[in-house]
Amino acid sequence: MNQQYPSVLLEKAVNEFAKLPGVGHKTALRLVLHLLRQPAEEVEAFGQSIIKLKKEVQYCNVCHNISDTATCQICSHPMRDASTVCVVENVRDVMAVENTQQFKGLYHVLGGIISPIDGVGPNDLEIQSLVDRVKSGVVKEVILALSSTMEGDTTNFYIYRKLSAYDVKISVIARGISIGDELQYTDEITLGRSIVNRVTFDGKF
Amino acid sequence: MNQQYPSVLLEKAVNEFAKLPGVGHKTALRLVLHLLRQPAEEVEAFGQSIIKLKKEVQYCNVCHNISDTATCQICSHPMRDASTVCVVENVRDVMAVENTQQFKGLYHVLGGIISPIDGVGPNDLEIQSLVDRVKSGVVKEVILALSSTMEGDTTNFYIYRKLSAYDVKISVIARGISIGDELQYTDEITLGRSIVNRVTFDGKF
Repeated sequence: MNQQYPSVLLEKAVNEFAKLPGVGHKTALRLVLHLLRQPAEEVEAFGQSIIKLKKEVQYCNVCHNISDTATCQICSHPMRDASTVCVVENVRDVMAVENTQQFKGLYHVLGGIISPIDGVGPNDLEIQSLVDRVKSGVVKEVILALSSTMEGDTTNFYIYRKLSAYDVKISVIARGISIGDELQYTDEITLGRSIVNRVTFDGKF
Repeated sequence: MNQQYPSVLLEKAVNEFAKLPGVGHKTALRLVLHLLRQPAEEVEAFGQSIIKLKKEVQYCNVCHNISDTATCQICSHPMRDASTVCVVENVRDVMAVENTQQFKGLYHVLGGIISPIDGVGPNDLEIQSLVDRVKSGVVKEVILALSSTMEGDTTNFYIYRKLSAYDVKISVIARGISIGDELQYTDEITLGRSIVNRVTFDGKF
């Protein structure tokens, strides 16, 4: 349906919002009309925060995570263990691992995973820079924390091959039954893997 | 959960997006990271379109609809019938009526409906300006096209009282069974009203 907008300015703003993933024209119109009802300063702040982010945001020169400074907060933190590097796909995965509060090492953000269907090859990712970090000798362990998908496994294997020439331990995050899951509803591949990769039980949880 | 953002700029942009209705922090982060992957010109255009809209948009001095000019396209259109005025709540309702292509008169946008719970009284709405339009003598019919809710009915009645002193026909859009609806699933108030307000059937649809 060809919507008749009463204003070209309104139509433009709606079309911009509708470009966002998961936002259709109806939702876009709702959001834009909401913004129109807000005070001018707030709308200005909204627009500027986006423009400023895109203009000023940096990528850490060590781990390639989003950062406000040349080297990010995590990489420049004196208490973090530089000998352990956790390889993740993107910023959101860094945030997810950080939220667990279980990891005190540094990260390496690939910026994606190898996916021939999407046209993403190893050279589009920050893999060479990971090899260079390992080559420098500080890194003792690389933890591969990618999605448990075919693309994730392919990327894991590619990185494993690239790093096998160096004296570094390579590990992968455990795949198994989610906490709270019932055995009868777990798929057989996950269940099978969790039996093969069983760990010694020491009576603690 | 207190999310740890790797960048203050990122956090600010996410918080701005999360202020939008129906957008939580997870969705906001997804949208912001999507924008970060877009070319700088596009992100700039997105931000500017919002700021520009808020700064430059006008409200028509006749019908109070959103407009790019002092008088909106509809009010200044030579082929529209200025003697019929359709009273609606907001811009979206103008667009909805326009999309039916059944109305060739002008509009009057109230900017809301009377709702004591939300603290909206008659003086917060464009009711006096409607009375002034009627007073000028051009308007022959006022069509009340508000939502079929208690607030809508209250506003209808308030406007009816305000306009009863003038020589103007006041009508209200038909309430009845939606096209395609089955009788057995229609609520009894709607069904009752549709019987009371029955119209002569002339064999045409």
